[in-house]
Amino acid sequence: MKKAVILFSGGLDSTTCLALAKSQGFSCYAVSFDYGQKHSVELSAAIRIAETFQAKHVIITIPNNQFSGSALTDSTIAVPDFNHSSNIPVTYVPARNTIFLSFALGLAESLQAKDIFIGVSAIDYSGYPDCRPEYIAAFQTLANLATKAGVEEGNIKIHSPLIYLNKADTIKLGLSLGVNYAHTISCYKANKDGHACGKCDSCYLRKKGFLDAGVADPTLYYSV
Amino acid sequence: MKKAVILFSGGLDSTTCLALAKSQGFSCYAVSFDYGQKHSVELSAAIRIAETFQAKHVIITIPNNQFSGSALTDSTIAVPDFNHSSNIPVTYVPARNTIFLSFALGLAESLQAKDIFIGVSAIDYSGYPDCRPEYIAAFQTLANLATKAGVEEGNIKIHSPLIYLNKADTIKLGLSLGVNYAHTISCYKANKDGHACGKCDSCYLRKKGFLDAGVADPTLYYSV
Repeated sequence: MKKAVILFSGGLDSTTCLALAKSQGFSCYAVSFDYGQKHSVELSAAIRIAETFQAKHVIITIPNNQFSGSALTDSTIAVPDFNHSSNIPVTYVPARNTIFLSFALGLAESLQAKDIFIGVSAIDYSGYPDCRPEYIAAFQTLANLATKAGVEEGNIKIHSPLIYLNKADTIKLGLSLGVNYAHTISCYKANKDGHACGKCDSCYLRKKGFLDAGVADPTLYYSV
Repeated sequence: MKKAVILFSGGLDSTTCLALAKSQGFSCYAVSFDYGQKHSVELSAAIRIAETFQAKHVIITIPNNQFSGSALTDSTIAVPDFNHSSNIPVTYVPARNTIFLSFALGLAESLQAKDIFIGVSAIDYSGYPDCRPEYIAAFQTLANLATKAGVEEGNIKIHSPLIYLNKADTIKLGLSLGVNYAHTISCYKANKDGHACGKCDSCYLRKKGFLDAGVADPTLYYSV
C-alpha cells in the first residue's frame, strides 16, 4: 500500500484532502502543526478526524517566533472580519506553507513515501501566495532536487487536488467521500469549544461554500 | 543598513559566509538549528562566533522526529569514517536544508530582509543533493513565489557564495576576512569539548582544505 503524507489542519479543505487520499488507496500519514496559531483548537478537531479516518497522525510543534506580523499568531494584531479587498490579508503567515511542506517532505522521505497532499485552493481563498498553482509546482521541482529520494528515484509529487475547485465543489467532493464537516474547524477565531465566529475570511468562504453547494451548514457559530 | 539572514552552524563554511555577509555591509541575523544532531556542541561554537562578529543570533529548536534514518541524528546509526564512495552518504538528513531555508525565509520576511546566505559548496562536499546550485536556484524561485514580499517586491536572493569554491579557497577567503577557524566546529563526531575525530567526511574535507591552502590546521583533534 503506497504511503502518502497529508498536511492536515483539521479544517474543511485538508479533511477533504485526507478523505480523497484515503479513497485513492493511500496509507495516510496526517501531519498537523502547532505553530502558535490562536485557533489551536483546530488541532483537537484534527486528532478526532484522523482517528475517524484511521490515519496515522503526528502534531509537530514548531517555534512561532518566525511568524511575527501575522494576525493568526500575533496577540497584538486582531483577526479582521472578511472584506472584499484583493490585497494579501494580515492573516498571511510568512513562509508558512513552505515550512509545512518542508517538514512533510522530510517525513515523506523518512517513510519512503513519494506523495504529499496539501488542500490549498486558488479559487475560494484569501489570496495567500503559497496557495497558488505556480507555488505548488515550484515546490514539487524543489522536492525532487532537494532529496536523496528525489535525485535517485524522482517522482515526488505534491498533490493539490482542490486547487481549481471552488468551496462548494470541495464540499460536494468531501460529502461524496463521507466527510462529516461538523467535525472540521476552519475559523481563525474559533473558541475553545471549536465554535466559529462566522465573520473572518475563513468563515466567510466556508459559509458561502455550503450556501452555493445547497447543503445545510453544520458549523456551530458563537456569533452572527 | 540592509539586513541578511545567514544559516549558521558554527562550522567552517557558514562562518566564512557570515564574515562575507558582514564584509558586504549587511546587518547580520545568524540562525542556527538544534535538530537533534549528535554534534550539538557546534551550537556552542555558533554562539561564540556570532558574538565575535556582533551578529544577532537565534537558535531554533525543531523536532528531530523528521530526521530518521540519518547517522547525524539516529543513535542506532554510526557516523562512518570518510570513504571515496560517490553515493549520497548515510549522514544525509532528509530535507534538512529545505527546512532550514524555509525557516530562514520566514524570518527574513518578518525582518523585511531580502538576502539569505547559505554556506553550501558543490565542490568539496559530501554529495548531499541540497548543496547543489540547481537546488539553490530552485529554492530562490520558490521563495519569490511563496511569500508576500516575493510577490509584491521580488528580489529575494539566496546567496551561496561558496558553492563553486573548493575548501582551500573558502579557507583563504575566510582568513582574508578575519575568520579564526580555531573557533569553528565541523566534525560530525565532535566531543563535548568541541574536539574533532579527524576521520569523518567533514573532518576529511576540512583537513584537506587546510593542507591544500598551505595553512596550519588549527583544529584540535581527539584522535588520529
